[in-house]
Formats: sequence, C-alpha cells, structure tokens
Amino acid sequence: MGKVIASITTSVDGYVTGPDDGPEFGLGRGGERLHYWVMGGPWTYDGGHDFAMHGPDKQFYDEMVATLGAGVVGRGMYDAAGAWGGTNPFPGTLFVLTHRTEDQPAKESGFRFVADLGTALTQAAEAAGDRDISLGGGADLIRQALTAGKVDELVISTAPVILGGGKRLFEGFTRDVDLTIIKTYSSPYATHVRYTVTR
Amino acid sequence: MGKVIASITTSVDGYVTGPDDGPEFGLGRGGERLHYWVMGGPWTYDGGHDFAMHGPDKQFYDEMVATLGAGVVGRGMYDAAGAWGGTNPFPGTLFVLTHRTEDQPAKESGFRFVADLGTALTQAAEAAGDRDISLGGGADLIRQALTAGKVDELVISTAPVILGGGKRLFEGFTRDVDLTIIKTYSSPYATHVRYTVTR
Repeated sequence: MGKVIASITTSVDGYVTGPDDGPEFGLGRGGERLHYWVMGGPWTYDGGHDFAMHGPDKQFYDEMVATLGAGVVGRGMYDAAGAWGGTNPFPGTLFVLTHRTEDQPAKESGFRFVADLGTALTQAAEAAGDRDISLGGGADLIRQALTAGKVDELVISTAPVILGGGKRLFEGFTRDVDLTIIKTYSSPYATHVRYTVTR
Repeated sequence: MGKVIASITTSVDGYVTGPDDGPEFGLGRGGERLHYWVMGGPWTYDGGHDFAMHGPDKQFYDEMVATLGAGVVGRGMYDAAGAWGGTNPFPGTLFVLTHRTEDQPAKESGFRFVADLGTALTQAAEAAGDRDISLGGGADLIRQALTAGKVDELVISTAPVILGGGKRLFEGFTRDVDLTIIKTYSSPYATHVRYTVTR
C-alpha cells in the first residue's frame, strides 16, 4: 500500500480560505492569492484564469502527483471548485466525502461519493494499489485524518499573504505531532514543504 | 533610517510557544523543538545546550543580524530567556517593552526598558542610525507592530512540529496584509522565509 499524502495551501497566518469561501468566491474573499502558485501568477474569480503553473511550483506539483493513484477530498472543496467542471483532473478516482451519497456522479466523471473517511481511505487504497493517495482539503478533512493517525505525509504550501480571517487549517486541533522535513521548494508565489509525519 | 525587521519562530500550526512558556519552561512544554535550528539540533531545558547553529540556519541568521543596529523585544520574552544571562547577545541596544521601567538594567548590560512600542521604535531608530532594527517576540509585540504598520520585513522560521497549543502568532489578528517573498532558507530544523510587507 502507498502513502497517504495530505496537501493544502495556507496563508502565513494559517488560513486555507479567506472569508465567505464557496461556489461564488472559491477560496473566499481575497483567497485568490493562495493559488497564485497554481495559476502561475495573479488571477481573479471574475476574470477567469489559465492554469499556467511553472518553475519550482510546477516541479513541486509534478513530483507530488507523479506517485498518486487516487485521491480523497471533502464535499465542500468539491462544491467550491465547481466539481472541476464535471471531470476529475487528478490521477485516479477522486473520492468525495459527503452525507449525500445517493447523488452519485457518473462513473466517467472520475468522482465517487462516500460517506465517511474510513470508507474513503479503504476504497482509495484499493483503487490506488501500491500508488499513493492524496488527501486534499478542506481543513476539517485534514484535521480528521491527522487525528486518526492516517496521514503519512503532510504537505503545506504557504502563500505570501496574511488573510486575517477565513478557515484556519489547525482550528481546534490540539494534538502534538512531530514532523520531518523531506523537501522544500521556493517560488515567488509560495513556499512548499513536504513533511513526513513521524508520530 | 533602516528597516524594522520582525522575526520569530513558529510551529507548523502557528504557535510561537508550547503551553506554559515562561522562566521555567522557556518556549513552553514541547517548545524546545521550535529552536532546534538555533541550537543546531535537539536540546532540553534541563540538559542545557550549546549554541551550535550551522549550515543554512546559520547563513539565514548571520545574514539577518549583519544589518542590525538595535532591537526591540517584549518583557515576557526577556524574562522567559532569563535576560540572556544578564547581557544582551544581539547587535546594539535591546529595548525591552515593559510596564515596570523604573527597574532599569545597568547600561553595560545592553538592555533598556521602555514603556511603549512608539517610544521603543523611536529610541531604537536613534540608536541604530541607518542600520536596521530587529523586532523579536512575543507574538503580541509583533501583532501590535504589524497592526500599526511599523513592520518593513516579516521573517518567519517554521519548525517541523505541530504543537497543538500555546501562544499563537496571529491570535486575534484580523488585518489583510500582502507580503513579497525576499529569500527562503531550508534546513532539517526549520524553513526560514523573509518577506517584505507590501501593504
């Protein structure tokens, strides 16, 4: 079985979205700046954007997705991303944690709705074989997996912005966890650090 | 006049100390891990330690202190550090923010007690001339200076640990601040990022 790799982008003050995140404002008001590294520069919710990741950001991303065989995200992230236009852009099946599993997307979409984290990880492991499983946001999903001891690697991309509000990655998280730095990547848009979860 | 450079070390979850920081436990219970990069490896409050910083950590530190002419810290940090044994180890005079200014340390100590941030920054600027001013912890001092628009550079060293409790750097901070990455340094003990405060 491969590793479970939880990855997310935060602001310097630890927010994974600005205020009012959701279908209308994606990563929240002002939260576009979290993903300059994804888009390769400034973009807006209104103005549309190209996916023009480059340099160290692309190297970081390509190395991380190269080993993936399946993924898990929360329903909030799936909805905020507009279901990525209806087709999963990530490697392997993307399992979406939701209370509304009866509303399954078509198999060709590459999405699969599941009701709880344990089921999601079990099915993702089956789908991934000996490849790795990515664990995306939201923050609550990553906290839940960390608390359950299910995360092998934690990957934090820190964007150069202080948001001052929104959803905080470690809100209410009270466990002490040792990490080991595996590799760091630096671009003008983000500092990416891959950590092994030691205990 | 030089720049005001605020620098501090945090955990991955944004704490600058573990629980119960102070004269007895320094950076708080478990907070020793925040300063492995300062000591060059693991150390304990009980066991004493050598100041054996090396590699990218030393390069980061040396480059930052090279331009300094004075510093400002909070009284809590001064007390937690045991007044660094009675002598200021940093370049230039170290101004200590405290409500108890009547208890001035001897001039040779290199410390000077002042009552408020405005006075501290004015006196530090006089002392530093055209050199830079460092702004150390605690977290409340850095938040206060950021809110007042007095910080030119924010420098965050992130140690590979999730503390799950303690004093949070951005606790209660609600301003939106744009940053620009100046330089990043990576070691097994910390990821150091120097940011310019853009607005």
